[in-house]
Amino acid sequence: MVDRIRLGMVGGGNDAFIGGVHRIAARIDNRFELVAGALSATPERAQASGAALGLAADRTYDDFKQMAIREARLKNGIEAVSIVTPNHVHYAAAREFLKRGIHVICDKPLTSTLAEAKKLVKAAEASDALFVLTHNYTGFPMIRQAREMIANSELGDIRVVQAEYPQDWMTEEVQNKQADWRTDPARSGAGGSIGDIGVHAYNLACFVTGLELESLSADMQNFVAGRRVDDNAHVMLRWKGGARGMLWCSQVSPGNENGLKLRVYGTKGGIEFSQEDPNYLWYTPFGEPKRLITRGGAGSGAAAGRVSRIPAGHPEGYLEGFATIYNEAAEAIIAHRAGNPVPDGVIFPTVHDGLKGVEFIDACVRSSGRNAVWIDLP
Amino acid sequence: MVDRIRLGMVGGGNDAFIGGVHRIAARIDNRFELVAGALSATPERAQASGAALGLAADRTYDDFKQMAIREARLKNGIEAVSIVTPNHVHYAAAREFLKRGIHVICDKPLTSTLAEAKKLVKAAEASDALFVLTHNYTGFPMIRQAREMIANSELGDIRVVQAEYPQDWMTEEVQNKQADWRTDPARSGAGGSIGDIGVHAYNLACFVTGLELESLSADMQNFVAGRRVDDNAHVMLRWKGGARGMLWCSQVSPGNENGLKLRVYGTKGGIEFSQEDPNYLWYTPFGEPKRLITRGGAGSGAAAGRVSRIPAGHPEGYLEGFATIYNEAAEAIIAHRAGNPVPDGVIFPTVHDGLKGVEFIDACVRSSGRNAVWIDLP
Amino acid sequence: MVDRIRLGMVGGGNDAFIGGVHRIAARIDNRFELVAGALSATPERAQASGAALGLAADRTYDDFKQMAIREARLKNGIEAVSIVTPNHVHYAAAREFLKRGIHVICDKPLTSTLAEAKKLVKAAEASDALFVLTHNYTGFPMIRQAREMIANSELGDIRVVQAEYPQDWMTEEVQNKQADWRTDPARSGAGGSIGDIGVHAYNLACFVTGLELESLSADMQNFVAGRRVDDNAHVMLRWKGGARGMLWCSQVSPGNENGLKLRVYGTKGGIEFSQEDPNYLWYTPFGEPKRLITRGGAGSGAAAGRVSRIPAGHPEGYLEGFATIYNEAAEAIIAHRAGNPVPDGVIFPTVHDGLKGVEFIDACVRSSGRNAVWIDLP
Amino acid sequence: MVDRIRLGMVGGGNDAFIGGVHRIAARIDNRFELVAGALSATPERAQASGAALGLAADRTYDDFKQMAIREARLKNGIEAVSIVTPNHVHYAAAREFLKRGIHVICDKPLTSTLAEAKKLVKAAEASDALFVLTHNYTGFPMIRQAREMIANSELGDIRVVQAEYPQDWMTEEVQNKQADWRTDPARSGAGGSIGDIGVHAYNLACFVTGLELESLSADMQNFVAGRRVDDNAHVMLRWKGGARGMLWCSQVSPGNENGLKLRVYGTKGGIEFSQEDPNYLWYTPFGEPKRLITRGGAGSGAAAGRVSRIPAGHPEGYLEGFATIYNEAAEAIIAHRAGNPVPDGVIFPTVHDGLKGVEFIDACVRSSGRNAVWIDLP
Repeated sequence: MVDRIRLGMVGGGNDAFIGGVHRIAARIDNRFELVAGALSATPERAQASGAALGLAADRTYDDFKQMAIREARLKNGIEAVSIVTPNHVHYAAAREFLKRGIHVICDKPLTSTLAEAKKLVKAAEASDALFVLTHNYTGFPMIRQAREMIANSELGDIRVVQAEYPQDWMTEEVQNKQADWRTDPARSGAGGSIGDIGVHAYNLACFVTGLELESLSADMQNFVAGRRVDDNAHVMLRWKGGARGMLWCSQVSPGNENGLKLRVYGTKGGIEFSQEDPNYLWYTPFGEPKRLITRGGAGSGAAAGRVSRIPAGHPEGYLEGFATIYNEAAEAIIAHRAGNPVPDGVIFPTVHDGLKGVEFIDACVRSSGRNAVWIDLP
Repeated sequence: MVDRIRLGMVGGGNDAFIGGVHRIAARIDNRFELVAGALSATPERAQASGAALGLAADRTYDDFKQMAIREARLKNGIEAVSIVTPNHVHYAAAREFLKRGIHVICDKPLTSTLAEAKKLVKAAEASDALFVLTHNYTGFPMIRQAREMIANSELGDIRVVQAEYPQDWMTEEVQNKQADWRTDPARSGAGGSIGDIGVHAYNLACFVTGLELESLSADMQNFVAGRRVDDNAHVMLRWKGGARGMLWCSQVSPGNENGLKLRVYGTKGGIEFSQEDPNYLWYTPFGEPKRLITRGGAGSGAAAGRVSRIPAGHPEGYLEGFATIYNEAAEAIIAHRAGNPVPDGVIFPTVHDGLKGVEFIDACVRSSGRNAVWIDLP
Repeated sequence: MVDRIRLGMVGGGNDAFIGGVHRIAARIDNRFELVAGALSATPERAQASGAALGLAADRTYDDFKQMAIREARLKNGIEAVSIVTPNHVHYAAAREFLKRGIHVICDKPLTSTLAEAKKLVKAAEASDALFVLTHNYTGFPMIRQAREMIANSELGDIRVVQAEYPQDWMTEEVQNKQADWRTDPARSGAGGSIGDIGVHAYNLACFVTGLELESLSADMQNFVAGRRVDDNAHVMLRWKGGARGMLWCSQVSPGNENGLKLRVYGTKGGIEFSQEDPNYLWYTPFGEPKRLITRGGAGSGAAAGRVSRIPAGHPEGYLEGFATIYNEAAEAIIAHRAGNPVPDGVIFPTVHDGLKGVEFIDACVRSSGRNAVWIDLP
Repeated sequence: MVDRIRLGMVGGGNDAFIGGVHRIAARIDNRFELVAGALSATPERAQASGAALGLAADRTYDDFKQMAIREARLKNGIEAVSIVTPNHVHYAAAREFLKRGIHVICDKPLTSTLAEAKKLVKAAEASDALFVLTHNYTGFPMIRQAREMIANSELGDIRVVQAEYPQDWMTEEVQNKQADWRTDPARSGAGGSIGDIGVHAYNLACFVTGLELESLSADMQNFVAGRRVDDNAHVMLRWKGGARGMLWCSQVSPGNENGLKLRVYGTKGGIEFSQEDPNYLWYTPFGEPKRLITRGGAGSGAAAGRVSRIPAGHPEGYLEGFATIYNEAAEAIIAHRAGNPVPDGVIFPTVHDGLKGVEFIDACVRSSGRNAVWIDLP
């Protein structure tokens, strides 16, 4: 067994949601060891959070820049860092690590502004280090299965792509740590629901179909009085090559917890996937009965099997999908240790996928601001 | 028991789909007796179809005008007529019966053109006879339940309306009686999928929510080479009062048989309905667990019970929903015999709903033809 | 079109559930005309019920024997009679019609006692008339599909049969017309839930698999204090040829409305069916993904198509399945008019199936009374 | 953060299924550190497996006794051991650790014979160390929810318990590491499917309902020619206090991957749970609509929340449920370090639950061998 990858974390202190998820994800396949952190913008909380996680006191930092500088100099300093802060910190933090050759595993969306996203792409390109974006839903085995089937032309030419991501937790005004920064344009960016969850649906549609978006028309709302960002968005999609589609995201639709769904229809067949039931993929070859492909079951192929841990019928979930992103990152980092490129077959969302996501958010905001005019993607 | 209503039929000869459906629907609750027909545009087929249905030879007509004239003069001539032809015949046929005081039960969409729709509204308004449009899905008990719940403010203020109606039977080029007229603008009208099924989804959304559409933006496609009308349509919806939504219909999405679905979300709760499983209504009061209301079961109220025939757990289906439209028509016709208005609580789609549907189709076609520009509804 | 079959009805007066179901079922395919009835054991109610149904006064009878005698003498007397009374009346009524050559369509279970069931078999065998038992669930297209697949060896050798029929309406003490006779051994027979619904599950298992039961072990309960018959039953099944199974029925299981389910597993595949969603049949060929066969959809064959009315995606329900039994009866009766035997391919439950059902109930009652000892079926 | 618990493992070498599951489960919540192992009965494979897991060479043992002796003497020797071998090794291995005060986390069933199970209970009672049995399904949040609801009398008095656990992977003869020992009575014990999966269903029914089984009647089969243990079992259950039920397990039912289901009905309501969709619990209060309680969602209470990691709508799966058993064990072990008893609210299956499971298997085998005679549980 090769040595585990020494990992640091920026953000993710007590009370954070996604930081804990990253830590479990990093542990599941045992490829990482968390050894350093700048876990909070408040020094006291940073120290308390580090202690709670069992980090050494001298590797619990008050800010990420300090951590980047010192860890880069340590003999066994961190090889990679997870950035799990609100969006507006992503760019500044990632830059510090990239320029010191420390790999970055960053939460989505890439940044809170398009300008920063472009700068981050340059920073990543200028660095020898890897950049991994945790669009975690791309780690689900049945999503890999869907992607493989489409790449193998099992659906024929893609015509229709329906993506949606409704939630209900912001149906009324919410005030808590999770909601506060997500509804503050200074921290989340100009997109609300579109930046928090719409971009996941968009990324997943691109990932599964391999299509590129040509243009979009967006009609976004902020239904809750006083909310400064959208909490519901409707988007019509025109893909290069002729496919068409729609995307809906919402944080105000009662009865939807985390309802990311993707449906893709082509000349030869259709597939349907729901994030809340991720061990299933519905597949209909045109003119045949609908089939239920299960993770690890008959009909589930190599791409899914490569990222599965346990047999069919034993459900894997959100954390395992997230762990697969970490596992893919580990494959790339281990190869990088030996001076090798990302191995064939290793798949993870990159800084370029991140830029596409921010371009999507930006285009939605601009379109909606101009009465849903069609906006071309770059 | 009062006398059954004497019914004629225009269209619905051998090989037709919807004519047979109307006849079963008219029989289920035993309120109608089919006694006359002009069942086909071809005299030989009209006669053969009449004989097959057991109609008297002298009440089997070669054309609808002849039928209208003679039946109006008979002592026991028909009191009502079902018009089940392709769309382009609806207006001309309905007019003949309306002007002779014969009630009309007409298939949707109302007409194949907006001009005809407006004329038909006038004809209906000028007539003493009733006009019933068979937007049959409004007959489902769980749709009545949903409508009642929204009318009673159980969902609060409506914010989001998602309607969809995907099918797959036209994924490839199809040539048969059903497909031919539906893809011929001269017979179906300018709308293809939007006129055949999209209008059902639109009608259902209006019926359940009680909302009126303010404007729409439509992006429609005809994916199959050579097809002259749309076979897929994406529409963004802006409702009066501030609700927003999307509507998708498709005839080219493999794995979807007749996938009409409606989801409505308000400030206090959400509901979800799927036509293929019509005995269920999902209801989530915000902040409580999702509930499965079943036809006739606990939580199913008076509006649903009024149009149910059998106990909970014994599924009713498409034909029973269709029969409810006939039953509602019968209630109105029986009242009309006595010179009374439509009784309170009797609900059926009217010629005005039909006009709204044709306006919707027309607006979609115009919007899509102008790069999905927003079009105001009249 | 041939003349409709002249039908009488015994039982089914106002407030009855199953009589109304039989009448709708007889109407749906327009093969029958209800012209006479002895609708209630109470003369006043019999007359009121006949009037409400539009029967002629002189064909509304106070008792079934009087009806049998007179109708048999009429020139256009009834050709068939539907018997929809509580169980204890079935034998006496059926006998009167059978001996006069009038076809009998009888509700299940066949009789309330085994002795009567045997006598009824003899009466039916002695008569030229047909006997049709309304085990209505055998009329579902997807049940026909399942039966055809097993007959065609698509499941290989059958090993395991799981049948269940839970309901919840008798969870507490119930006093109404439906409950009263079902819990009165003098009217329902010695079986409670086992005779009312368990026998449906048993019949369906036999019908679909073609297997014959060898022996059973039953453990039955009456959970509600004071209830004189079982309201829950567990049965282990040993089928001839080596298959094994279980059957559960219950009237006291909250959350189950009418949950008849059948699952059959063989050496080559498995199928699963649920009465509440009757347009679906799950089918798994061993080693392949699960397939969802839909009524009228791809994978749905000739046996299902023969008894379907409308296209895939347009759900048929309980009433249509029931109507299929009437339609099959009509096929046989029309052939009988011409002196012909039941046509090939026409399938309906017979008096012999009815005897099997009563033998099953009797065996369950005896087994349960003797601590679930194994009882051989005759 | 307290020190992680030093963990050893017996069994679980390369190619094993359940060993890898235990290791992930032990990692997810970061309470354990795997530091020693006797991973295979073959020394070469034991060494290779240890190296693959990154164990130190001097803590990779050729047999479990050697490991128990040396680790007990080490200053920082293991505090706990996971036993993940085939069943026949459980007793001998567990005994060695228990008598040296090392906590045991053991896979199910407890042992391969009843005699060993009783001896293991004594060994555990004689030891100061803890004994945790990994009936992992008791770790699912929705199972904890169900248990809490029943304990709180939300279902009233329990009447009916339906448990089932069908699989299909042994539909045909299978020869591989997993199948070989499971079908060898010398290694698995006298029970085949009943010992491998039936006992899980039984344990879950007991865990959720709190009921104790009084007697059972079992009819078991070995359908595949040459198979030496049962591959399908039907069991009727009589619970103390009057509840009744059935249990079915099968390894030969095509279309079932890992279909553990539990349904419980009482005087006031019913619940339904399916292992393959573990984030859902169906709950019907009698006379109200069915509710879908989701992990972390509205209606999900403290018992479920205590063992959940992520918000509603983000599915947790099999590994997280398994990890909860490890987490509960950790709570108890940390308390034990300080000389404290198992903390209130910490719940895990014990050696006594294990004995009950083996008694159940033994009773099923004996009952089935005597024509399904009723057998009282001890």
